[in-house]
Amino acid sequence: MTSCIFCSIVAGDAPSTRVYEDDDILAFLDVRPILRGHTLVIPKTHAAQLDELDPELGARMFRVGHRLANAVRHSELAADGANLLVNDGKSAFQTVAHTHLHVLPRHNSDKLRFARGLILRPNKDPEGAAAAIRSALQRTESTDD
Amino acid sequence: MTSCIFCSIVAGDAPSTRVYEDDDILAFLDVRPILRGHTLVIPKTHAAQLDELDPELGARMFRVGHRLANAVRHSELAADGANLLVNDGKSAFQTVAHTHLHVLPRHNSDKLRFARGLILRPNKDPEGAAAAIRSALQRTESTDD
Repeated sequence: MTSCIFCSIVAGDAPSTRVYEDDDILAFLDVRPILRGHTLVIPKTHAAQLDELDPELGARMFRVGHRLANAVRHSELAADGANLLVNDGKSAFQTVAHTHLHVLPRHNSDKLRFARGLILRPNKDPEGAAAAIRSALQRTESTDD
Repeated sequence: MTSCIFCSIVAGDAPSTRVYEDDDILAFLDVRPILRGHTLVIPKTHAAQLDELDPELGARMFRVGHRLANAVRHSELAADGANLLVNDGKSAFQTVAHTHLHVLPRHNSDKLRFARGLILRPNKDPEGAAAAIRSALQRTESTDD
């Protein structure tokens, strides 16, 4: 039993739409996305804030965010760019006390959609968005192996 | 000669207020800070966007951002938190085509100051802010060595 929703997601006790997972890191869709494909990357080990997070795990979290930023450009989401964001502390708008990196796929001229998403945060077709990202991760990185 | 302002800063051909430097990474104050102590962390090697950046350098860039996020809490800036942000691509509001990580020291109830800073971006006492961050980096990490 844990009171941390992200730890519950890691444990599989709470549902999530996963896009990436390894031994240390999990990435899943934000249930209240600002934009389509809005993904959260978390260390599986609980750390409320960056000052509790092992630097090596932080670096791994960022590596996955970096890969996702590349992948969403080449996914069906056809992003033109991405924002990678850690809100560290309540003062910085952190809302879940388990460190996480936001990956926000962006498109040219989506400023209005971005602003609307900040307020409405609708969640249409999460499975489609997740499948597109998972597929692009495999496709864009298979040539590296 | 380079047309990249951040490469010029790395080379010492353009001025900057430095807060951290190692072989691969440089951190200096944003000349148009949104908030006091607003710092940019960059790889010294030019990479326009994340898809051109070596993942290992990306991880090192984030590690320095992580250290700065911890340091500003314990600096004279007395931050309560921080935002760490990479804007990757023009669509994501990237304005300088050399990958960089923003570190924004935040304070409780600074939402209005944050919003005002987004518009005005004044730069009062950069040397004082940089000295406070440099000092905190040394102080908070000297016990780790």
